[in-house]
Amino acid sequence: MSAVDVPSGLPATRRTPLPGDPVLERLSLNQKTTPSWDLPSLVEGCARAGLGWVGLWREPVQEYGVERAARLVAEAGLQVSTLCRRGFLTSSDAEGRRRALDDNRRAVDEAAALGTPYLVMVVGGLPEGDRDLAGARERVASAIGELVEHARGSGVQLSLEPMHPIFCADRGVLSTLGQALDLAEQFSTAEVGVTVDTFHVWWDPEVEAQVARAGERISSFQVCDWITPLPPDALLSRGMMGDGHIDFRHHLRLVTEAGYTGPIEVEIFNAQVWAADPAAVLATTARRFAEHVLGE
Amino acid sequence: MSAVDVPSGLPATRRTPLPGDPVLERLSLNQKTTPSWDLPSLVEGCARAGLGWVGLWREPVQEYGVERAARLVAEAGLQVSTLCRRGFLTSSDAEGRRRALDDNRRAVDEAAALGTPYLVMVVGGLPEGDRDLAGARERVASAIGELVEHARGSGVQLSLEPMHPIFCADRGVLSTLGQALDLAEQFSTAEVGVTVDTFHVWWDPEVEAQVARAGERISSFQVCDWITPLPPDALLSRGMMGDGHIDFRHHLRLVTEAGYTGPIEVEIFNAQVWAADPAAVLATTARRFAEHVLGE
Repeated sequence: MSAVDVPSGLPATRRTPLPGDPVLERLSLNQKTTPSWDLPSLVEGCARAGLGWVGLWREPVQEYGVERAARLVAEAGLQVSTLCRRGFLTSSDAEGRRRALDDNRRAVDEAAALGTPYLVMVVGGLPEGDRDLAGARERVASAIGELVEHARGSGVQLSLEPMHPIFCADRGVLSTLGQALDLAEQFSTAEVGVTVDTFHVWWDPEVEAQVARAGERISSFQVCDWITPLPPDALLSRGMMGDGHIDFRHHLRLVTEAGYTGPIEVEIFNAQVWAADPAAVLATTARRFAEHVLGE
Repeated sequence: MSAVDVPSGLPATRRTPLPGDPVLERLSLNQKTTPSWDLPSLVEGCARAGLGWVGLWREPVQEYGVERAARLVAEAGLQVSTLCRRGFLTSSDAEGRRRALDDNRRAVDEAAALGTPYLVMVVGGLPEGDRDLAGARERVASAIGELVEHARGSGVQLSLEPMHPIFCADRGVLSTLGQALDLAEQFSTAEVGVTVDTFHVWWDPEVEAQVARAGERISSFQVCDWITPLPPDALLSRGMMGDGHIDFRHHLRLVTEAGYTGPIEVEIFNAQVWAADPAAVLATTARRFAEHVLGE
């Protein structure tokens, strides 16, 4: 199956985007799925397709201007599901730690200005040459404690994203939902939640129990597929829903039973998806979302 | 760092292999680390280097003859640490399941003939097009129950190897040591144990607790490194000890405190290692083993 359906070879999009379509209204397109779209094109594309939400990244938002981006999204009738991302809190030297905390405080302020209550936290991997995984995990916990102080009262929750163990060394030392909850539960739900991304958690024998445990701490539910063979670049190894091995309906049922009713964000890092026309990517995303995630 | 040290650029091997060297006596070279060696070359190489053990694979052993291989190893003064491998027990059709069970029974008999008490079990991934992970895991548990009946009295333990979640879809749906122990503990320790491979378990936030829980069920301790960036072929992504992010002494301490005193097997699937001269690979393995795993 190709990651992006070729429109000419298919009947016209099966779902006609209608205002108020209950499936599309829960779909959020994460900006990294169509990185070749600038912010106005992204917002226009999502609104035209009938989506209710968009997931934004800090760098393009900063470039466009945070306040201006907030107005652009609101005027299009969309809401920001999450702001991606900060974290990277594992530095073992004082200066690196200070810089990371400063940047995270700015990210909290940007999320507040954008009107999204959720800042996704990718906590960071092992520092260069450092093999002390337990130490890196302790530094993350300590830094989250400091950031909570800053975020309190801002209306922004730090949403810890456990990362697939494939990224433990170089992206995120929080490796399971259970581990993320052990940390999150040291704070109030308003302060620290969790992002549940199928790509990261689908393999976990504890996922059913831990999603139930997460309950109202689930601030974001994200979907993309696990494909094999794994593409050569592990960072670009995410697949379009339906191309891989994940049972999305099962995971949607889990988060729904845990009480989650918010947007469902599609975030796909994949060279083939990135090379395709972003409008075709969005059309495929909407169709696959209805076929594999939320539709009948 | 290069995966295989270039002998000409280095002083002569720092460790002189001495008969009775207590470090080398615990080292086992898994056959897949030097696949270009035929069985006699492998056995001769290990014996000459002062190793106490060798880890064998079924296919080259079958080709050489199981009884003949057992004699070859014994006459060289080596012992077989493990036989790799069987498992692949997730087939969802009756014929596939029957064939897998037959093959596993043969593997048990081969391990017994070789004189190793441990058959490493890689339980298999999701069948083609099947997204029911829980179902696959249930089929594994059921099949292990059948195989235990055959293995009982043979002197061979089925050693369940939890696989890194990177392989959940296509190699092994047992993803954590805790999950493997949940299954193993349904049987006696003589019947079902676990293989602890640093590559597969190093990221696990539960690894300390689960290795302690495993105790005398640990039948094999295997080491190789997690390297970044991950090589393009995920199956060949294992690194030579010292090239990556794993703290081997920490994991050796864990298995030692759990009571494990057996051989430590080095199994490295890596294109660069496979392309090198096998004698150089073994020399590097022995040196890195002493530097990063067991030596002072």
